[in-house]
Amino acid sequence: MITLAVDCMGGDHGPRVTLVACRQFLEHHADAELLLVGLPASLGALVHPRARIVPATEVVTMDDPVEVALRKKKDSSMRVAIRQVKDGAAHAAVSAGNTGALMAIARYLLKTLDGIDRPAIAALMPNAKGEATTVLDLGANVDCTAEHLLQFAVMGSALVSVLKNDATPSVGLLNIGEEVIKGNETIKKAGELLRSAGNSGDLNFFGNVEGNDVFKGTTEIVVCDGFVGNVALKASEGLASMIVGFLKAEFSRNIFTKIAAIIAYPVLSALKKKMDYRRYNGAALLGLRGLVFKSHGSADAFAFEQALNRAYDAARNNLLDRVQTRIARAAPLLMPAAPAVQPAEAATSD
Amino acid sequence: MITLAVDCMGGDHGPRVTLVACRQFLEHHADAELLLVGLPASLGALVHPRARIVPATEVVTMDDPVEVALRKKKDSSMRVAIRQVKDGAAHAAVSAGNTGALMAIARYLLKTLDGIDRPAIAALMPNAKGEATTVLDLGANVDCTAEHLLQFAVMGSALVSVLKNDATPSVGLLNIGEEVIKGNETIKKAGELLRSAGNSGDLNFFGNVEGNDVFKGTTEIVVCDGFVGNVALKASEGLASMIVGFLKAEFSRNIFTKIAAIIAYPVLSALKKKMDYRRYNGAALLGLRGLVFKSHGSADAFAFEQALNRAYDAARNNLLDRVQTRIARAAPLLMPAAPAVQPAEAATSD
Repeated sequence: MITLAVDCMGGDHGPRVTLVACRQFLEHHADAELLLVGLPASLGALVHPRARIVPATEVVTMDDPVEVALRKKKDSSMRVAIRQVKDGAAHAAVSAGNTGALMAIARYLLKTLDGIDRPAIAALMPNAKGEATTVLDLGANVDCTAEHLLQFAVMGSALVSVLKNDATPSVGLLNIGEEVIKGNETIKKAGELLRSAGNSGDLNFFGNVEGNDVFKGTTEIVVCDGFVGNVALKASEGLASMIVGFLKAEFSRNIFTKIAAIIAYPVLSALKKKMDYRRYNGAALLGLRGLVFKSHGSADAFAFEQALNRAYDAARNNLLDRVQTRIARAAPLLMPAAPAVQPAEAATSD
Repeated sequence: MITLAVDCMGGDHGPRVTLVACRQFLEHHADAELLLVGLPASLGALVHPRARIVPATEVVTMDDPVEVALRKKKDSSMRVAIRQVKDGAAHAAVSAGNTGALMAIARYLLKTLDGIDRPAIAALMPNAKGEATTVLDLGANVDCTAEHLLQFAVMGSALVSVLKNDATPSVGLLNIGEEVIKGNETIKKAGELLRSAGNSGDLNFFGNVEGNDVFKGTTEIVVCDGFVGNVALKASEGLASMIVGFLKAEFSRNIFTKIAAIIAYPVLSALKKKMDYRRYNGAALLGLRGLVFKSHGSADAFAFEQALNRAYDAARNNLLDRVQTRIARAAPLLMPAAPAVQPAEAATSD
């Protein structure tokens, strides 16, 4: 039995969406049970033999500063959900709430793995090879050092190697040109660290990649600062929406285009499915001593269910232990990279 | 008569593409003449009464470090083309060459406008409103301060107000959330500067925008660091290519989908046109005392011709003078923001 702790209050829509998704999820997974975390009065809509309410008295809002979420709201649904993971009551936690708050609380309660300074958000983006590119970080860290980018590369490799059963997935460093001389100082230094990691055989480093390579599928993993990754992700979502909107408008222009739409329906529906970002919802917070998944704040029930599915798959595949093993193996690589301010943590990486 | 200086050697394809584009451009513009800058032996393919070869003995390659392009190759086609603008022999220069080199040479030869520390690359991106969002910077500056972002906002406002004849176009600050608390320190500080500029009436500042807002057309101008802008632009190009490739593959799958493609042709061709990034080719290098336009390095003849068109339009509309006037008017806003290392330049902003 896989147990997930769900922050039912999080996201733009709260229980109205999360409870519907939870019900669907339970119907699709006979070996799963859910801990529905939130204000009990808001959770009455879902009664199920494999769902149990875990009460919380507070809710982290989308615009709560991280400090407020972390220090003032100690009984928030987000925090209580993560605590279930820490206490061993759940295999993974899922929330559609405020990303910064989720990351801060998860990090505070669960702590990072040895050799990892900052957790990262890793998500899937569809690529032209018909697969998906794993991109990290997508918004957890907005001021990354070169060392952090190296850690993201190791964590991303660990994740993909576990899920795809490929021991050496390729890693690209997101930059503004393929040439080694491109980019800002942080990126150039990260390139050096990744190249030496690649040369020592610890990492399959491809080199610099550009924004379009994410969708080409040039590498299996793309590593970037969270600010850059978040903007690229949202820009892509925006473009996809624009195209879908354009097709809808064009195909409904007149009777001929409406007939064309009916005839082209199978292709358009395949395109719509491919471009449906909801299918890729559910990002992993990597680098923590526990599994936490982040859903898009605006997720609808279908999208939120995907995030639950992702958490379920991770728990079933024992992702945490396997990622932990990979990261421990890469510890010699990460140790010299750890910043001087945390020598105690870095020293325990073996 | 509008005279453009064309770096015919630049870009991935050099004269093979640039000369074809130049010929087309001349056919479409009876009141334009071109200075074809490059190795004379490579430029024989275009003979035209309104085209004249201006010889250069060197070529900046796509992977030349900026220092090499600037200090070693003093007779490069790129540099000679920009020199035509400086010397008053041409109204604008166009190059598809190495962006970093183009920016450095343009800045060295032409100098920046008073109140502007760094030129920025401003380009158009299509949006769901059927218009185009002006985004800057798209790769010229990879480590921007908050003050630089404010300068970009003023330059972008000047550009759009001139081209769209709208005195107060709206400006958004690209961030990872709409809330004021989001982003890294630079972005938060830039938000403060932009807000006070907005409050003082010098700028129509909308607030933070996210990656998807570029394509929604939430604001007319989006301001960002060049690294972020470049990644977002290329990611969008990559996604657009993926979608076009997907549609091609799906519509040619079997006889039924091929028939559907024929029937849906008008819509698909409209979509293809809308998503054709070549149409938006030709970015302005803003903030210089001269007009310089940058074409995508991989531009084909059609795309390169668009860059020539953009330079021609800018020259015809007397863009430089009008932008200069707007920036001069915003000088009190920019002066306190100029970094302390350049007090002499900042002091002359009136």
